[in-house]
Amino acid sequence: MKVGIADTTFSRINMGKIAIDELRSISSLSYERYTVPGIKDLPIAVKKLIDERDCDIVISCGWVGRTETDKLSYIVLSMGIQLVQLLTGRHVIDVTIHEDEAEDEEELLRVAENRVREHVRNAVDLLLNPKKLEKLAGTGQRQGYEDVGEIRR
Amino acid sequence: MKVGIADTTFSRINMGKIAIDELRSISSLSYERYTVPGIKDLPIAVKKLIDERDCDIVISCGWVGRTETDKLSYIVLSMGIQLVQLLTGRHVIDVTIHEDEAEDEEELLRVAENRVREHVRNAVDLLLNPKKLEKLAGTGQRQGYEDVGEIRR
Amino acid sequence: MKVGIADTTFSRINMGKIAIDELRSISSLSYERYTVPGIKDLPIAVKKLIDERDCDIVISCGWVGRTETDKLSYIVLSMGIQLVQLLTGRHVIDVTIHEDEAEDEEELLRVAENRVREHVRNAVDLLLNPKKLEKLAGTGQRQGYEDVGEIRR
Amino acid sequence: MKVGIADTTFSRINMGKIAIDELRSISSLSYERYTVPGIKDLPIAVKKLIDERDCDIVISCGWVGRTETDKLSYIVLSMGIQLVQLLTGRHVIDVTIHEDEAEDEEELLRVAENRVREHVRNAVDLLLNPKKLEKLAGTGQRQGYEDVGEIRR
Amino acid sequence: MKVGIADTTFSRINMGKIAIDELRSISSLSYERYTVPGIKDLPIAVKKLIDERDCDIVISCGWVGRTETDKLSYIVLSMGIQLVQLLTGRHVIDVTIHEDEAEDEEELLRVAENRVREHVRNAVDLLLNPKKLEKLAGTGQRQGYEDVGEIRR
Repeated sequence: MKVGIADTTFSRINMGKIAIDELRSISSLSYERYTVPGIKDLPIAVKKLIDERDCDIVISCGWVGRTETDKLSYIVLSMGIQLVQLLTGRHVIDVTIHEDEAEDEEELLRVAENRVREHVRNAVDLLLNPKKLEKLAGTGQRQGYEDVGEIRR
Repeated sequence: MKVGIADTTFSRINMGKIAIDELRSISSLSYERYTVPGIKDLPIAVKKLIDERDCDIVISCGWVGRTETDKLSYIVLSMGIQLVQLLTGRHVIDVTIHEDEAEDEEELLRVAENRVREHVRNAVDLLLNPKKLEKLAGTGQRQGYEDVGEIRR
Repeated sequence: MKVGIADTTFSRINMGKIAIDELRSISSLSYERYTVPGIKDLPIAVKKLIDERDCDIVISCGWVGRTETDKLSYIVLSMGIQLVQLLTGRHVIDVTIHEDEAEDEEELLRVAENRVREHVRNAVDLLLNPKKLEKLAGTGQRQGYEDVGEIRR
Repeated sequence: MKVGIADTTFSRINMGKIAIDELRSISSLSYERYTVPGIKDLPIAVKKLIDERDCDIVISCGWVGRTETDKLSYIVLSMGIQLVQLLTGRHVIDVTIHEDEAEDEEELLRVAENRVREHVRNAVDLLLNPKKLEKLAGTGQRQGYEDVGEIRR
Repeated sequence: MKVGIADTTFSRINMGKIAIDELRSISSLSYERYTVPGIKDLPIAVKKLIDERDCDIVISCGWVGRTETDKLSYIVLSMGIQLVQLLTGRHVIDVTIHEDEAEDEEELLRVAENRVREHVRNAVDLLLNPKKLEKLAGTGQRQGYEDVGEIRR
């Protein structure tokens, strides 16, 4: 079993490195990394990780800028990742950090690190232990921020 | 005949559990459940339920957050579900709860429970009794809120 | 030659029934009807009408609600209908009524009835008499409202 | 070599007729015309012109109305035209006139006539003389309005 | 190894020429150029550069105008480029200049020239030296503006 990790030089945080660090700390799965310039280059990189480097699941790490164009590129990235999943029959975890989602750089760092790590754990669970996710169904899990929890009667 | 149920850990309500409860109460159809982290993971999960676990129809249970990014992800989810349907030739009921559609958590719970249950009934009708839906054509059926009814002369 | 008619239980007007009524009044073509819950269920229903029930053309009758989510679902519906057409090589007339396009329910009824009937005539012309449409090219035809006419020098 | 021309009855200007007039005045290429009701019917018409009537290139003439729904339909049209091009391997010139882009009907007529004629010339160049376009690269060509020219140091 | 360069006559800067100049100055790779009218013509041009002229990677140079329609066309362009990449298994660098992203024409020139040149270097690295990009992962690289750098603790 092999995990793919795709990330960008556009990102202001080394998301791929964090992903690898988390993956190593929770598993002994091997991995392949593929770094591309920006988010619109990620879907084909992910597809290559699956088709050419035999990855069973991929964590795509995208950094979305602040402009309207960046928001539109986010849709394009995410539709591309959908297509890759449906063409290959593999899960791809589409992790994105939006530069405008936090108050300052410190918070952004905290959110990004936490989100990447949690999604690596999600990816490993999807691959090795899908029943664990079922137990968490409907519990308001969040990646990057605190879990918001289940709404209870 | 088998029904697939896909849901998320992001959801703040255990939509998958409600779906299973309703399915059991109105039919003896078997089912498969697949829980993923968030809505962008649903289309491939749905495709796997059809391709790998032989589901004849799938109920996809998505929870859409409040941000602009969540709205964009809703389009991506829904386009993904379209693609899955067209690629597999099977119906997939794309149930979504939007966190900002209700005044408070109590109403959100009521809407979510009702919407999931009604869509399970829709799925069973599509599978076993499509003529029943034809009789309801144009009658302003709503899932989650009260039916608004037919506009009459 | 067979005409497919797809409609929804979400609609507040029995668009499928109007379509059938018009089709019968202007032709002796046979038809198949398929009713689904909402607009996001229409593309696969249309594809099934073509693939499984041998329809040569389909009239898809969608009712679009008032919310932002409904607008987004309209894009999803329409992209789905594009994909079905390109996958099957058949025309699909994508008729939609937008709940917020008229002042009151009476006008909505008038618009909906008129639009469905005119598009049934368009579908029959595409199938049997395409040259008739060519004669109307550029004449500002509208379905649901009065034709606006050609802009003349 | 054959040129396809697709247009609509929704348009308020006979764009197809203008296209044919221009094509005849600058070339002796044969053509096929296909008129459909509205812009969402254009992609499948274009595909049929290529697949069933052997067109080597198609000029798709669309008229986009003033409402938000029309803007959304513009995206759908244009994505459909992309898909047709990628599925068939042929260029399709996606000409659109937006009803709200001009001050009055007179200007709209002028813009539409000019845009259609210039895009017919583009289509012929793509087919017969692609090097001519290369010479115009980066020169701020506009269709419908005056060329804006190259930005110079 | 061959590099494709696609650009437009709509652009107000000769982006293709800049790309060729940069490519020649940093490598001895051969190239093919394809100039089309506007951004919606780029995806099929890119596909032809890959399928018919054997390019291993393509740099798509698009110029996006100021209007809302131009923004929508940007989504269409970018989704088309995604599809080309996934259909061909090749990277396509989707370079775009947005006419409204700079204060004046002088700045626009500077941004465009810099962005095209940096993306040509990215393309060459993806082709010949992918490990170089990995070393730059998460360092906030920008094309057209100054790099913003990594966010550090």
